[in-house]
Amino acid sequence: MEALPKHVTIKEVGPRDGLQNEKVEIDTADKVAWINQLSETGLSYIEFSSFVHPKWIPQLKDAKQVASSIKRHPGITYAALVPNQKGLEAALETDVDEVSIFMSASETHNKKNINKSIEETYPILTQVVEEAKQEGKTVRGYLSTVFGCPYEGAVPIQQVIEVSIRLLDMGVDELSLGDTIGVANPLQVDRTLTEIRKQLSFDQIAMHFHNTRGMALANVLVSLEHGITTFDASVGGLGGCPYAKGASGNLATDDLVHMLHEMGIETGINAEQLTQSALYIQSKLGKSLPSHQMQVCNKERV
Amino acid sequence: MEALPKHVTIKEVGPRDGLQNEKVEIDTADKVAWINQLSETGLSYIEFSSFVHPKWIPQLKDAKQVASSIKRHPGITYAALVPNQKGLEAALETDVDEVSIFMSASETHNKKNINKSIEETYPILTQVVEEAKQEGKTVRGYLSTVFGCPYEGAVPIQQVIEVSIRLLDMGVDELSLGDTIGVANPLQVDRTLTEIRKQLSFDQIAMHFHNTRGMALANVLVSLEHGITTFDASVGGLGGCPYAKGASGNLATDDLVHMLHEMGIETGINAEQLTQSALYIQSKLGKSLPSHQMQVCNKERV
Repeated sequence: MEALPKHVTIKEVGPRDGLQNEKVEIDTADKVAWINQLSETGLSYIEFSSFVHPKWIPQLKDAKQVASSIKRHPGITYAALVPNQKGLEAALETDVDEVSIFMSASETHNKKNINKSIEETYPILTQVVEEAKQEGKTVRGYLSTVFGCPYEGAVPIQQVIEVSIRLLDMGVDELSLGDTIGVANPLQVDRTLTEIRKQLSFDQIAMHFHNTRGMALANVLVSLEHGITTFDASVGGLGGCPYAKGASGNLATDDLVHMLHEMGIETGINAEQLTQSALYIQSKLGKSLPSHQMQVCNKERV
Repeated sequence: MEALPKHVTIKEVGPRDGLQNEKVEIDTADKVAWINQLSETGLSYIEFSSFVHPKWIPQLKDAKQVASSIKRHPGITYAALVPNQKGLEAALETDVDEVSIFMSASETHNKKNINKSIEETYPILTQVVEEAKQEGKTVRGYLSTVFGCPYEGAVPIQQVIEVSIRLLDMGVDELSLGDTIGVANPLQVDRTLTEIRKQLSFDQIAMHFHNTRGMALANVLVSLEHGITTFDASVGGLGGCPYAKGASGNLATDDLVHMLHEMGIETGINAEQLTQSALYIQSKLGKSLPSHQMQVCNKERV
């Protein structure tokens, strides 16, 4: 364990993955103020919204306004999710640094989420990646249900690897492997990464764990032992209510940062400022956020 | 990770360590019904109460009634905490199988908790252990603040080892190393166990983690990799409210069992019956228990 990475990159997905899983719609001005706070914490990557039809995710209908209102920091990549060509067009009207695309490793989840088979999804995403690249944008890929599907159960590792290879081959710069329903256990993560490293370079792999069953930090630990150095997280555990089948229990950025710093692993993030930004969005949500740090911190403030 | 233990023993401390950290006093009849349910889950060890003065822990003032009312299962060790000679006398009036004693690895916590220095504590505990042994009881030792003290901060590993050796030398059969305030991180657990194994046999060591900062299961994982096979936990995460400085955030037995079973490690415990017993005590507490399994389970029941 003494050979763990010395530095980890955390990609903050709270403003997108967090808010899209909260029922409350946050005012645009509050979102902007919050993202501006996040930009002061030392984070190097913030996924600020999603250019998806407001019918599906009304919480993020102000993506364009958010993009044009936040204060950009040099050294931070501001990214947005785009589900398709139309989303990409909208994103390209802003000065987004990177776009993210997504699909599932399991057929049923992909169909329920995107309304297409896995095979039908490839050409659509290929076109999005090509156009994004032509416009000089980097592209991130999210692969869902890597460790289990709410409809199919276990997902074969080889199937995960095949879809991963297709996404990387179409030009995706980084692939985030998601434990969408929070079922991954440490032994499974160990076995999955052992297989993946035989066929893919970890330089392009990030891990996206959910804490639905309390195992997210244990899974991060195993990933660190494999040499993974990029993790997604959502400040305060925003989006952490385990209600939506298929998207539950984001790992809290503050819990992740706390563990890493305690283990002597640098993130470049100021934990105190991160807590402040979590307290801010918590005050706008009108409910307690689930991160452990928030609870310890709330207590210490009482 | 393929060389992990195949079987783990879980020691259920909810009726003692859990309840003593909850504000609500549970009716004796409800406690008895609950412990009887726990006895049906496949657990092999239940710490059912503490023979401590009711002035200090009124929630456990019915220890004697509980002891005489619960239905004993063959194959289950029923244990109770005894703080001193007087507690031991009371415990010995019941047919307790094992008694547990406790002290801290840090001077200040020991003084605040026991009102004695570490050195002054040894002779008192020696007498308790001797008498318990004469009465044919096994003795468990709890060592608190192994990974950090709320008053002193870091606790030197060598100090932990010295106190551990003193406790084992006085005849303690098993020593439970406690992360009393839930600050241990995986690297620290790795380093601590690396040092401990040089001077002590792991056969007599159990780990007692708290999930205050979300790292309990990651710390269990590291301990498993070191070959530790006995862990304390509290069903539902009872006693898990992070309010009391010095005793916060019990690891939930159900979360621990879930992770171990998912990793193919046997515990002998029926997870479904364990959940039922957690739901039962939750209904008596009148508040939600913090375990992840309870939240997933509550959701699935909605």
